Amino acid sequence: MEVGFLGLGIMGKAMSMNLLKNGFKVTVWNRTLSKCDEVVAHGASVGETPAEVVKKCNITIAILSDPAAALSVVFDKDGVLDQICSGKGYIDIHFLEAPVSGSKQPAETGQLVILAAGDKALYEEAVPAFDVLGKKSFFLGPVGNGAKMKLVVNMIMGSVMNAFSEGLTLAKRSGLNPHSLLDVLDLGGIANPMFRGKGPEMVKDNYSPAFPLKHQQKDMRLALALGDQNAVSMPVAAAANEAFKKARSMGLGDLDFLAVYETVKLLKHSS
Amino acid sequence: MEVGFLGLGIMGKAMSMNLLKNGFKVTVWNRTLSKCDEVVAHGASVGETPAEVVKKCNITIAILSDPAAALSVVFDKDGVLDQICSGKGYIDIHFLEAPVSGSKQPAETGQLVILAAGDKALYEEAVPAFDVLGKKSFFLGPVGNGAKMKLVVNMIMGSVMNAFSEGLTLAKRSGLNPHSLLDVLDLGGIANPMFRGKGPEMVKDNYSPAFPLKHQQKDMRLALALGDQNAVSMPVAAAANEAFKKARSMGLGDLDFLAVYETVKLLKHSS
Amino acid sequence: MEVGFLGLGIMGKAMSMNLLKNGFKVTVWNRTLSKCDEVVAHGASVGETPAEVVKKCNITIAILSDPAAALSVVFDKDGVLDQICSGKGYIDIHFLEAPVSGSKQPAETGQLVILAAGDKALYEEAVPAFDVLGKKSFFLGPVGNGAKMKLVVNMIMGSVMNAFSEGLTLAKRSGLNPHSLLDVLDLGGIANPMFRGKGPEMVKDNYSPAFPLKHQQKDMRLALALGDQNAVSMPVAAAANEAFKKARSMGLGDLDFLAVYETVKLLKHSS
Amino acid sequence: MEVGFLGLGIMGKAMSMNLLKNGFKVTVWNRTLSKCDEVVAHGASVGETPAEVVKKCNITIAILSDPAAALSVVFDKDGVLDQICSGKGYIDIHFLEAPVSGSKQPAETGQLVILAAGDKALYEEAVPAFDVLGKKSFFLGPVGNGAKMKLVVNMIMGSVMNAFSEGLTLAKRSGLNPHSLLDVLDLGGIANPMFRGKGPEMVKDNYSPAFPLKHQQKDMRLALALGDQNAVSMPVAAAANEAFKKARSMGLGDLDFLAVYETVKLLKHSS
Repeated sequence: MEVGFLGLGIMGKAMSMNLLKNGFKVTVWNRTLSKCDEVVAHGASVGETPAEVVKKCNITIAILSDPAAALSVVFDKDGVLDQICSGKGYIDIHFLEAPVSGSKQPAETGQLVILAAGDKALYEEAVPAFDVLGKKSFFLGPVGNGAKMKLVVNMIMGSVMNAFSEGLTLAKRSGLNPHSLLDVLDLGGIANPMFRGKGPEMVKDNYSPAFPLKHQQKDMRLALALGDQNAVSMPVAAAANEAFKKARSMGLGDLDFLAVYETVKLLKHSS
Repeated sequence: MEVGFLGLGIMGKAMSMNLLKNGFKVTVWNRTLSKCDEVVAHGASVGETPAEVVKKCNITIAILSDPAAALSVVFDKDGVLDQICSGKGYIDIHFLEAPVSGSKQPAETGQLVILAAGDKALYEEAVPAFDVLGKKSFFLGPVGNGAKMKLVVNMIMGSVMNAFSEGLTLAKRSGLNPHSLLDVLDLGGIANPMFRGKGPEMVKDNYSPAFPLKHQQKDMRLALALGDQNAVSMPVAAAANEAFKKARSMGLGDLDFLAVYETVKLLKHSS
Repeated sequence: MEVGFLGLGIMGKAMSMNLLKNGFKVTVWNRTLSKCDEVVAHGASVGETPAEVVKKCNITIAILSDPAAALSVVFDKDGVLDQICSGKGYIDIHFLEAPVSGSKQPAETGQLVILAAGDKALYEEAVPAFDVLGKKSFFLGPVGNGAKMKLVVNMIMGSVMNAFSEGLTLAKRSGLNPHSLLDVLDLGGIANPMFRGKGPEMVKDNYSPAFPLKHQQKDMRLALALGDQNAVSMPVAAAANEAFKKARSMGLGDLDFLAVYETVKLLKHSS
Repeated sequence: MEVGFLGLGIMGKAMSMNLLKNGFKVTVWNRTLSKCDEVVAHGASVGETPAEVVKKCNITIAILSDPAAALSVVFDKDGVLDQICSGKGYIDIHFLEAPVSGSKQPAETGQLVILAAGDKALYEEAVPAFDVLGKKSFFLGPVGNGAKMKLVVNMIMGSVMNAFSEGLTLAKRSGLNPHSLLDVLDLGGIANPMFRGKGPEMVKDNYSPAFPLKHQQKDMRLALALGDQNAVSMPVAAAANEAFKKARSMGLGDLDFLAVYETVKLLKHSS
């Protein structure tokens, strides 16, 4: 099976490398073509335009940064619509949406969780590729449900990260060893991979970006908007969202989302 | 080693039964003596007063519902002070404090996490009993640190439970299957035993008490007070605390703490 | 001067009646024409289409429920664009925006505060009408600033209403006379017309709609979105917004915005 | 009538000066006696001990910084109890409590609001002095109600100040003139003396202490604790309280309470 990739950001690059390693033929396109060099060095072909990628591949996966880019690759000149036809699969918001849960490292190792929704038949066709890209894929029903599920999960994660940041700060400021807190948490009912993996980094104030804070905040904002549409009041998520906004206002938007920890720590009055 | 127990509430009963099963001699006392019947049927002796228990045992463990009760068993007539002397170990707030993390089931199966602080030598002496009662014990430094650690952990847990409740509600109200959310969460970075164990109960609106909500709220209140003393601002914990208070105002204080989920769900206007 | 009105909702009707009483000639249009009957009975003319109103009047004021309606009256067939030309004033989002602060009663009595922004010359021309409609008009700069100012004011008002609701509830539940609280507040630093006017209604649980709660919540949501764009973290407004959402989820969206008071009061657990 | 004053902090000094100006005889005592110099220069006598003041005066008013000081002045050697007897009035928590609403300036000008509770007959006796000290006094019922009323009022005020700070910041960061916001607010439903008086100071970042932020935060904490006792959930007050705590953690506790505004403004990341 030949798989196309439109968009080679952090995630697209890791996912296409992963398919190459597993013996898939991969053709890639990116607005800035030089970003394709690394995957080409590992055996990928390059398409000059989205249309060319679609023409060449059975299934094309678009993983683009925002809805405007997603629309543009479809509808612009030499876009997907020029070549899409019966027998061609196109996986994105308007056909089969498949947002992923997991960041750079899971993308590289094929440990993503894939939240597909939309065209069931296309989902079935894409399953062999999904089986390489992720440890598990879900088919969640009508288009939109994949994005909603991702928002719900990321909203919970954002609130949990805030709860963790507050707890770490409270432990330190009241004289406890933060490493003891990590040990105790890891033996209890809310032990989880994120506390285990991110906790020691936070104690060292290390916020190298895996999932940028500004994207986490965007997901919380959208989850709250989804709640607004459905009249769901979510005071904890709202408080967490404001903390992420505070982090953005402190210039931390491009660091990893755990930098929200900085908003809880002691702050100097600067004016 | 002979071990005494003062207080046979849910936790004290489960812990003393556990020691009996593991071959320890156990003497118990409870203000309402009839509460001792079940453990006596399994081989425990009864002390008529706290003093009598201390006289008989090498180590006495007090597990009482509140500080007033803890003070009363020590200082009242026939209390601990009447018999405490060199060579007698007494484990509680003023000597060796050892709050536990975990509720009824972990108490029964010896899977508690024990957060000891205070007299290091007494801690060392008590380790054989702690090894039966818990899967792990920590010595955390000066008296007070055990209670603080427990507050920090429970505060994080309370916020996480609120985040979970909001996410479950948002999923349901925006048309997602809540069981899919549980499956997706269990594959991701914040997968944890609490979501796995409590999630299906919440979907069924089952709140049989393991850790009563009013006690969870009390711990959040005390954790926030600890933050206040140390000038730590914790907006997410504060929002979660208000949700637990709302649950109390709805008459849910005696249900399990996951009943905070009820505050997020659709409410009827009653007036 | 002949003034046109597009849109005869609660506000449009009150404002046009007010101009009629002050001797202006008024021509009105509304999508459902029967809504014009009352003002026609007081001397207004009716235009069959937005275009007809613009043709007839020097200045046309659009006061429509949402941006979609605002765009539709301008760009649809027989819309404003058909007749707008040099010498014709059109007051709305794209030309001169003039949101008002104040609800039904101030509209009827000419006590609105008018927050104009956009075309300065058109503002100057409209001042005689504004002087009748409002007790004060402001020119706030480029288009958009009128709407922004209104959002900021309503956001503050929404948070203040929540603070008031919480205080009233706390007073009652801790044994104070709520009327004493109203008296004390009215002598202090935060004495204000809203507490004075709405407080006695709230004590009686009277929420007859002047400014519907769902509109207040919409303004808070938009103000928070404006904060998001500008990286302003506003935890108090966020908490207040969630309370308004909770009120919506309780079915109170069509009552006056002070019904948020119901979310603070004792609630029965209904499930 | 001879009036005694125990405690010459900011408030005690202003109140005793005010009584002197109105022709009352005043005897004062303060732990650090040098603080009495200024009022003595205006005609006050000094008592060496609380007991001496009580002996000399018909009514003694204690205005002390905290409950510990209030207890000490009564129960310590040479304290109030040594001299209190039938015919002597003592106004404080345990007899007639009379917390005041208002800060330094209203104290100087006799514009305080006095919230008395406790012994009704003693209240009646004290009315002539209250009439000088305040523009209005309330008798609120049993002891405790005065303090509760003050907490409720200050809690509302603290939330309102946060709402105001957020609105001011949002206005500035989204391109509006903050002075226009002050003008618009002052014409609307929530126009109030605090916005009018403090707003221009906040725009200038002037936080000279009238009511220190740490005291405001203490009152919010106590109001939330009162809510906790009565199962009143107050999410907006809780969010405001965390903002005041954040201000304390930034080292702003001794500035005026409006310095909470600093927590909303753009912050630099300092680590």
